[in-house]
Amino acid sequence: MFIKKQRLLTPGPTPLLPRALHAMMASDIHHRTQDFIKLYPTVLRDLKDVYGTQNSDVLITVSSGTGALEASISNFFSEGDKVIVLSAGKFGERWVELAKAFRLTAVVLTAEYGDTVSPERVAQALTENPDAKGVLFQASETSTGAAHNVEAIAALTKPTGALCIVDAITGLGTMPLDIDGWGLDIVVGGSQKAFMIPPGLAFISVSPKAWEANASAKLPRLYFDLKKENKMAVKGESAWTPNVSLILALAESLKYIKELGMDNLVSNAQLLARATRAAAVELGLELFAPGSPSSSVTAIKAPAGMDSGEIVKGFRNQFGSIIANGQGTMKGQIFRIAHLGYFDFPDLFAMVAELEIILHSKGIPVEFGKGVAAVQRIYADAVAGKK
Amino acid sequence: MFIKKQRLLTPGPTPLLPRALHAMMASDIHHRTQDFIKLYPTVLRDLKDVYGTQNSDVLITVSSGTGALEASISNFFSEGDKVIVLSAGKFGERWVELAKAFRLTAVVLTAEYGDTVSPERVAQALTENPDAKGVLFQASETSTGAAHNVEAIAALTKPTGALCIVDAITGLGTMPLDIDGWGLDIVVGGSQKAFMIPPGLAFISVSPKAWEANASAKLPRLYFDLKKENKMAVKGESAWTPNVSLILALAESLKYIKELGMDNLVSNAQLLARATRAAAVELGLELFAPGSPSSSVTAIKAPAGMDSGEIVKGFRNQFGSIIANGQGTMKGQIFRIAHLGYFDFPDLFAMVAELEIILHSKGIPVEFGKGVAAVQRIYADAVAGKK
Repeated sequence: MFIKKQRLLTPGPTPLLPRALHAMMASDIHHRTQDFIKLYPTVLRDLKDVYGTQNSDVLITVSSGTGALEASISNFFSEGDKVIVLSAGKFGERWVELAKAFRLTAVVLTAEYGDTVSPERVAQALTENPDAKGVLFQASETSTGAAHNVEAIAALTKPTGALCIVDAITGLGTMPLDIDGWGLDIVVGGSQKAFMIPPGLAFISVSPKAWEANASAKLPRLYFDLKKENKMAVKGESAWTPNVSLILALAESLKYIKELGMDNLVSNAQLLARATRAAAVELGLELFAPGSPSSSVTAIKAPAGMDSGEIVKGFRNQFGSIIANGQGTMKGQIFRIAHLGYFDFPDLFAMVAELEIILHSKGIPVEFGKGVAAVQRIYADAVAGKK
Repeated sequence: MFIKKQRLLTPGPTPLLPRALHAMMASDIHHRTQDFIKLYPTVLRDLKDVYGTQNSDVLITVSSGTGALEASISNFFSEGDKVIVLSAGKFGERWVELAKAFRLTAVVLTAEYGDTVSPERVAQALTENPDAKGVLFQASETSTGAAHNVEAIAALTKPTGALCIVDAITGLGTMPLDIDGWGLDIVVGGSQKAFMIPPGLAFISVSPKAWEANASAKLPRLYFDLKKENKMAVKGESAWTPNVSLILALAESLKYIKELGMDNLVSNAQLLARATRAAAVELGLELFAPGSPSSSVTAIKAPAGMDSGEIVKGFRNQFGSIIANGQGTMKGQIFRIAHLGYFDFPDLFAMVAELEIILHSKGIPVEFGKGVAAVQRIYADAVAGKK
């Protein structure tokens, strides 16, 4: 029996930033006193910096990401409003569920799991539905590791009356998202993703165009009333009781991200993703979303005839590493290696070495060190300034 | 700029056990109340279990390891007493300093750095010095990565009047140490080593033979008066104010070590050490202590013409990994990869991959993945039950 450190290596919750965790210990402050009212505006300002927007307001909800997805419907639409929904995986399906629950009329553009909805199809849907009030999609579809072309979809939506509503829960920090430049009206994020802290907070940016829509939106809302939240945020407070420990953690993680640079956080994820794809190919494995791979998570198909759960279990049982299986119907088909947030190259060196051993132990012919070497070459080339 | 997680990978302080760290948060208990008096005897009992002794008392001092080394002199000798000191590195030299400071007559048996003092030389010294009252040595000499033959030296000392006094600060948890069976009279350990918690506590086992010597030992002592400490320990208390947060941490780490099994902790370190030596050889590097390598730490020579500090800096600057340079005159000559305590194979996969990249970046011809593969093979063979 060997020592096996538990390593959380999933696409959310992600590995935790130590200094953010330590900060949570200072939670003995009251949220309606100056102690908190000094802290909160700094956090909101840093969050806006990290989001990279001048024009949008960025708000925090005490909820999971799904809560903020719900807020991005209930605050901007009225019953029966038509929206175009892009669905290319489990989280696309969540948009469909939300639209249905809030009695919107959803025009659903589906893509096969692993694939994405092309900008061309969005263009056509917008033409066919000039009354559409929103285009809802995932920047990165976490369940399949595929990324939508956010810039192109936003460019198509911008000139219309529709809001461009982006679930960027795993997109933020793993891909460029130019909120003001591209015209992203709503961008949703979550604390347990590239923000490197535990789950419990969600983030939502609201553009001037979205605030306009908000003025006439009649869907019922109270807890997620963003207008109220924004009014309080301006005063340095939250509408409801905030999650103080996570706000303290977020203050530290935002400082860290600003020190590192949001661009560097993105390119770190991109390079890790590229290296992971190279290692997978080197080991004879097939990528699940080769056409438009996201840098938040890389989905890899299990070798023919093998349940991907065997690989996930191998990581856990042999090494204590927690990686993700496929979700829903993809369970058993794929396993997912995450890159979003606090992941570094030594994490990946170890993960690929573990994967080689797991495959080898299942009788798959693997040359030890071959996948690791692919990762090392990409790292060394990047450091040397080579593409 | 990439994310670089700080990873503490030195031979002490060693990587920290998360659940032990979390336990430190419960430090708001008073050490002269039942809260502590319920806790302390459990910790002392578990420590004794982990030490693996029935006959010796195992005590805790609030000090670094050196404090307990001092206690193992001041409690058992009188001015002018003769002791045989084995010195094969920086920590052997510390024994010599301590013997001198406490005005003992030291017969010093030195070995070249990287080498050890043979049992034959100890036998001869004992024959030539029948009045010797102690044999003082390191189980594992942390500065060079060499291990003494504890069993053989103890066997020679046992029939004499001398106490067998072992600095096992990096020996405990990395090599078998049969205190009762071999006759180890004093065995010193430290919290920041295989015990996986921060520095601040030292441990010392005292055999019946050592207690006998204690009765007539006249060296001055108060803070490190082990007789007083033992009297208090029997009552479930410590003589002086204990380090409560570290006792809480130790309670957790001892539970973890007992769950894992002390034998498994030792074999984990032994296998990591073996794999590290194999990787070094595979990469064309030379071991510093090939004759009697310890499993606490592997000292590796820098390639010809290179300062080992370059490698240490590479680990820190390129990857955020903190490894150890040589100490004293060995600084610049060697670097040291640690295995004691909370280290696992994924740590080593990553460390060797990092080393390969660092060597490559310094112009040393290295085939990426080759050293990692050596580690993987040893892991896979061990899991498959092969030697």
